[in-house]
Amino acid sequence: MIDLEQVQDCYVSTSSKMVLLVVDGLGGLAHPETKLSELETANIPNLDAMAQESACGLTTPVLPGIAPGSGPGHLALFGYDPLKYIIGRGALEALGIEVDLQPGDVAARGNFCTVDNEGRLTDRRAGRIPTQLSAPLCEQLDKIELPGIQLDVYPVQDYRFVLRLRGTGLSEQVTETDPQINGVPALEVKALTQDAEKTAALVNKFVEQAQKILAEEVPANMLLLRGWAQLPELPPMGSAYKLNPAGIAAYPMYRGLATVAKMNIIPTGKSFSDEVVTLKENYDNHDFFFIHYKPADAAGEDGDFGAKVQALEDLDPLIPSIRDLNPDVFMVAGDHSTPAIMAAHSWHPVPFMLNSQLTKGEGVPSFDERSCGLGSIGRIPATSVMHLGLSHAGKLTKFGP
Amino acid sequence: MIDLEQVQDCYVSTSSKMVLLVVDGLGGLAHPETKLSELETANIPNLDAMAQESACGLTTPVLPGIAPGSGPGHLALFGYDPLKYIIGRGALEALGIEVDLQPGDVAARGNFCTVDNEGRLTDRRAGRIPTQLSAPLCEQLDKIELPGIQLDVYPVQDYRFVLRLRGTGLSEQVTETDPQINGVPALEVKALTQDAEKTAALVNKFVEQAQKILAEEVPANMLLLRGWAQLPELPPMGSAYKLNPAGIAAYPMYRGLATVAKMNIIPTGKSFSDEVVTLKENYDNHDFFFIHYKPADAAGEDGDFGAKVQALEDLDPLIPSIRDLNPDVFMVAGDHSTPAIMAAHSWHPVPFMLNSQLTKGEGVPSFDERSCGLGSIGRIPATSVMHLGLSHAGKLTKFGP
Repeated sequence: MIDLEQVQDCYVSTSSKMVLLVVDGLGGLAHPETKLSELETANIPNLDAMAQESACGLTTPVLPGIAPGSGPGHLALFGYDPLKYIIGRGALEALGIEVDLQPGDVAARGNFCTVDNEGRLTDRRAGRIPTQLSAPLCEQLDKIELPGIQLDVYPVQDYRFVLRLRGTGLSEQVTETDPQINGVPALEVKALTQDAEKTAALVNKFVEQAQKILAEEVPANMLLLRGWAQLPELPPMGSAYKLNPAGIAAYPMYRGLATVAKMNIIPTGKSFSDEVVTLKENYDNHDFFFIHYKPADAAGEDGDFGAKVQALEDLDPLIPSIRDLNPDVFMVAGDHSTPAIMAAHSWHPVPFMLNSQLTKGEGVPSFDERSCGLGSIGRIPATSVMHLGLSHAGKLTKFGP
Repeated sequence: MIDLEQVQDCYVSTSSKMVLLVVDGLGGLAHPETKLSELETANIPNLDAMAQESACGLTTPVLPGIAPGSGPGHLALFGYDPLKYIIGRGALEALGIEVDLQPGDVAARGNFCTVDNEGRLTDRRAGRIPTQLSAPLCEQLDKIELPGIQLDVYPVQDYRFVLRLRGTGLSEQVTETDPQINGVPALEVKALTQDAEKTAALVNKFVEQAQKILAEEVPANMLLLRGWAQLPELPPMGSAYKLNPAGIAAYPMYRGLATVAKMNIIPTGKSFSDEVVTLKENYDNHDFFFIHYKPADAAGEDGDFGAKVQALEDLDPLIPSIRDLNPDVFMVAGDHSTPAIMAAHSWHPVPFMLNSQLTKGEGVPSFDERSCGLGSIGRIPATSVMHLGLSHAGKLTKFGP
């Protein structure tokens, strides 16, 4: 698997511009009746026309057969080995609601839950209480104080929240309190390493106080904590590649992932057309732009084939506005496939196209799984996407004499 | 990336014969008007006929998106991980003029340059003085003596020369004297590691004496040294693969690269047809032959599409003379692509074909980028070429029980 540092002497800073459009959950599978995938079904003349003038291929997000989450899917596209740089569940949950997570902080995913008189779990999700009930509970828990560290509790959605610990000497190497079944009490937190004993003791104190605060609440009279995680230490994308990178994403999770790579986050609106306006307005200020399109994945996860087709058709008319900026390199990629017939992320290779001055006349007829499989790029690890883009942009020079 | 030593128990010595023809800069890109690459444009009936009877594919020299120099491009084809075994600039320059470079020697690339009365650089290339002016200066510098080591200066071309240091305890871990800009003096050499302090002190003494010798020369009154390099220590190809390998190359650089892999270099003439005669005359003496064809790369680097087509057409009639020897395995590969439209080495996958008794009837219609992309070998790292060849030659047996 590629590593940013393997060819570190070959990166050069130039004025050329790169745009990486990540269509979340881009790849799909054939509908059982039509035998056509979402991309093959959708009417996407602009993406198809671009494919005809692009180098096309398929990317493997992590390894063949591995369906990635959003974290590894994006890190790979940014060039980070997704098997080396792991974003834990708690950290990703925090990024998803734009909690400020700094190196050294520890985050956990929390669930409100229900226990009986003897403390045994009766509902691990407290009847999936709505956010308007859980948010005031988070405010209560947020007031808990622990010696020597800062503690914050953020509501996520329904019964879910994020606990963030900030202070020196904290560790993610502690066990979860969720026993994963009802009928038994929540577990005590244990240190997995000697360094983590302080954290384990602090968290147990937090749980003890939280239990008192929640005791009379119905049905959320207890909490569970899991997915302890600190941010991985990634080489910043800007200094690694000699770029001035910007991230534009309507959804906080993807701004969070861009933050992990140390991109500059440009505030934007709620829709992809807002993102494109933001791209245009800031086009002179950066030489690399990551821009994120979410609806394809959301529809795929819902198992709604038609909605995913529609999401792709909604994206298509905005492609010319990006091409009109004349970026030296414009890449359309996906972090993973989300076939509607699976209603889930999948391991299938993801369509990819790269447009530059060097790609005229080598394209394929249309932008979809089958056509891209015949493209000149072939099948590459997603971690090679940045290197290909940088080379086409003249930002990656010859390796070795 | 593959490593020679991964399957070391599987190599067996047999009497079968292998020929690896490396067409330098083989791969190309489509001409903007015709949409056909150099290989697709060229009339190469013998290469096409061979492709129809061969297993075809595309090789990735280093990693997708990485354009390699000649060093990594060839080492990969010989089976060495090009990210692990690095040939520095000074060593490659020395190999390029066939300086005898032994393990432990340190080589640098030298430039004659011009400085003003206060020692500030006014021309880093001394007006690109011709070789007939620089060669006598090299003779003068060659007479400099340093305590405890042997020192030799070899003219390369125009303002360029090679400095070779031979002795015990030398190190490549020293800084360059070239400040890369005019208007400032040459830099002093500094040791990057403690082990390199002896080398740094010796080189500074050399520069001091050289400066005195050159002081009155116009315009080459000073020198710059860069690209300090020792040879990487490679497992010899012969013992690693249980082969008796020979290298045949008209250009010294490629004889040098074959030397690094410890092939036996067979003296030959100035042209590829000389090389083919050499191959024939020595066919009984070795079981593996690396034979090198340079003109395709030279034309590509010149950005001359027509000349690259011609270079491929000039190669084609000589293919039957090699096939007539009936090698058990005949492979045609490239160290990298050199598309004429880029006038440079590129990162694009390189056409590859392997002909053996096992490849009849699985070929593609012609030998070019698109056809090879559809071949049975698919896309492989260039480091896998030797393993494929050895297996087809019966020299690589089953791995694992």
